[in-house]
Amino acid sequence: MEVQSIQVEKNTAPKEKPMTDQLEFGRAFTDHMFVMDYSDELGWHNAKIQPYQPLSIDPSSMVFHYGQSVFEGLKAFRTESGEVQLFRPTKNFERMNKSNERLVIPEIDEEFVLQALIKLVEIDKDWVPGADGTSLYIRPFIIATEPFLGVAPSRNYKFIIILSPVGSYYKEGIDPVKIAVESKFVRAVKGGTGEAKTGGNYAAGLKGQEDVAKDGYSQVLWLDGVDRKYIEEVGSMNVFFKINGEVITPALNGSILPGVTRDSVLQLLQHWNIPVSERRVSMQELADAHADGTLEEAFGSGTAAVISPIGLLCWDGKDYHINNGETGELSKKIYDTITGIQYGKLEDPFNWNIQVTQKAKVNQ
Amino acid sequence: MEVQSIQVEKNTAPKEKPMTDQLEFGRAFTDHMFVMDYSDELGWHNAKIQPYQPLSIDPSSMVFHYGQSVFEGLKAFRTESGEVQLFRPTKNFERMNKSNERLVIPEIDEEFVLQALIKLVEIDKDWVPGADGTSLYIRPFIIATEPFLGVAPSRNYKFIIILSPVGSYYKEGIDPVKIAVESKFVRAVKGGTGEAKTGGNYAAGLKGQEDVAKDGYSQVLWLDGVDRKYIEEVGSMNVFFKINGEVITPALNGSILPGVTRDSVLQLLQHWNIPVSERRVSMQELADAHADGTLEEAFGSGTAAVISPIGLLCWDGKDYHINNGETGELSKKIYDTITGIQYGKLEDPFNWNIQVTQKAKVNQ
Repeated sequence: MEVQSIQVEKNTAPKEKPMTDQLEFGRAFTDHMFVMDYSDELGWHNAKIQPYQPLSIDPSSMVFHYGQSVFEGLKAFRTESGEVQLFRPTKNFERMNKSNERLVIPEIDEEFVLQALIKLVEIDKDWVPGADGTSLYIRPFIIATEPFLGVAPSRNYKFIIILSPVGSYYKEGIDPVKIAVESKFVRAVKGGTGEAKTGGNYAAGLKGQEDVAKDGYSQVLWLDGVDRKYIEEVGSMNVFFKINGEVITPALNGSILPGVTRDSVLQLLQHWNIPVSERRVSMQELADAHADGTLEEAFGSGTAAVISPIGLLCWDGKDYHINNGETGELSKKIYDTITGIQYGKLEDPFNWNIQVTQKAKVNQ
Repeated sequence: MEVQSIQVEKNTAPKEKPMTDQLEFGRAFTDHMFVMDYSDELGWHNAKIQPYQPLSIDPSSMVFHYGQSVFEGLKAFRTESGEVQLFRPTKNFERMNKSNERLVIPEIDEEFVLQALIKLVEIDKDWVPGADGTSLYIRPFIIATEPFLGVAPSRNYKFIIILSPVGSYYKEGIDPVKIAVESKFVRAVKGGTGEAKTGGNYAAGLKGQEDVAKDGYSQVLWLDGVDRKYIEEVGSMNVFFKINGEVITPALNGSILPGVTRDSVLQLLQHWNIPVSERRVSMQELADAHADGTLEEAFGSGTAAVISPIGLLCWDGKDYHINNGETGELSKKIYDTITGIQYGKLEDPFNWNIQVTQKAKVNQ
């Protein structure tokens, strides 16, 4: 499909934009959305940008029953000069196709949906907030829409992109969180859907999250589903540890989501010549490093928060304080560098940004 | 809530009913549906029976993104005297509340939704087909509807019941299927959502199913996610084996769905004084029993097919023929007895049936 084929129906009753200082995460949506349909006969078709509106979906649509869905999350940023740029969107559409394969959802044309996204953000560019720490959160997703109650891949889908202006994740700079190591529930297991970005992984995580929240922890640290020893993710983020000068993150083993921010962190560390390894890491290894004083920093990485320092880990009833509960120097440097690149304040040596308001660059 | 509080809006444009001999599974739906809403402020409220119609749902509704949903499946049958009866519906709503707990969805009032279901089926009773082997498939489900992109339990839900007249699962009597033992993909793992009836479990199973279908197998046999040795389920059914006169089914270990038909089979076997055990059973044990000639029968159990005999198992490239690929005597006896009770042809010693068209019985 050509981007020129996208029908555009402008919203004739635009909404009032929320005040920049009152932005919450994922509650306000812009005036337009992108939608396209899939059928076995026509493939992906009927691509259009239309006013943001409710979907009219049959109650027997398969997404409601058998969870056949995938999604992505990325952001657009307004630079100081007023331009709008996307952070690594090609990585997201590439990952969406990997998720599609696992969930038996038809492949999307990555270049086409990128152009569609750029067109959508351009139309709603006034919704990209400009204040410090704010951005436009972008949610592409695919749902199975065939009206059929049998357990089988759907023959119809909708691919949708919605946009949400979001505030700064941290009200007053980045702030370390308290994390509980989950011993009862499992997020995902090798052979399951853990490396795909699909609803079921998040649904599985809600109960553990709810249980630890009662005790004042903001997230859980997920262990592997086989041995219940090895670290996988933290909340819905990837996780990193700095031990004795080396940065370690769990290797992508099939049950861990290959995060785009995770990849950015790894690239930055290599660029800085900081020793880094992707490998299996157990909670016991972490506890041992804590005991001998070599566990220097710990942080989560994800699109929403970018970097979320971990100040405390609770494992089997014992508290492990990390870096005196303060944000580590490296954690801060990574956060400042990634956000600096995202807002166009720093050089972009990796060509991570794609301009929305200078489209020529995209087609290079 | 009282059943009297349910608002009823009759469909003024009823559809034509499909021909009984052309009924497929889960493609045709009746004239009405039951819907109720949940909010933190009002709890479950706004219960109504209305014409079957598309749902109008915000694209940011959490079910599309984080898979927070549960469902049930049960059937209503028309007896020879024309009455309509439900098979063990209380078990389904009891299980739905267990699924709700795992998925952090608010509890439903089991007695109220049963009465709502009876009222709905009564209104659409002409849709319950009468031909041999046909029935009315009932699908209660709950979806998270809060328009919010954060990973947290939703604050709004819809509970919906839709009805679908379905044909006989077997066109010409029950027929053994060919099954491949899945070695790459995992359906669920202990600590995950396997014992809850939620979409993510079914989404996870699609890929394995698609892969073996290419080789002519109709379903996969799922092994456990930890050791990859022990048998869990077959397709979306529970599984039973008859070895040397004893019937064995995998014990409910946290990753296996507690099937209503599974429970019915267990009760029947105990009633008949046939030795039965719920325990861990490995593929190797099955292969050994096959080798020494004591693997007598194998079958799946579920609401759709009731009993699905397994004629062939393929494990690591080797074929294991069971009972010469024919339906076993016990498999047939269980099928005939359960369907006999469902259609009111046999005595119902366990009080499994609930009359729809003789409501007094339900309130006992």
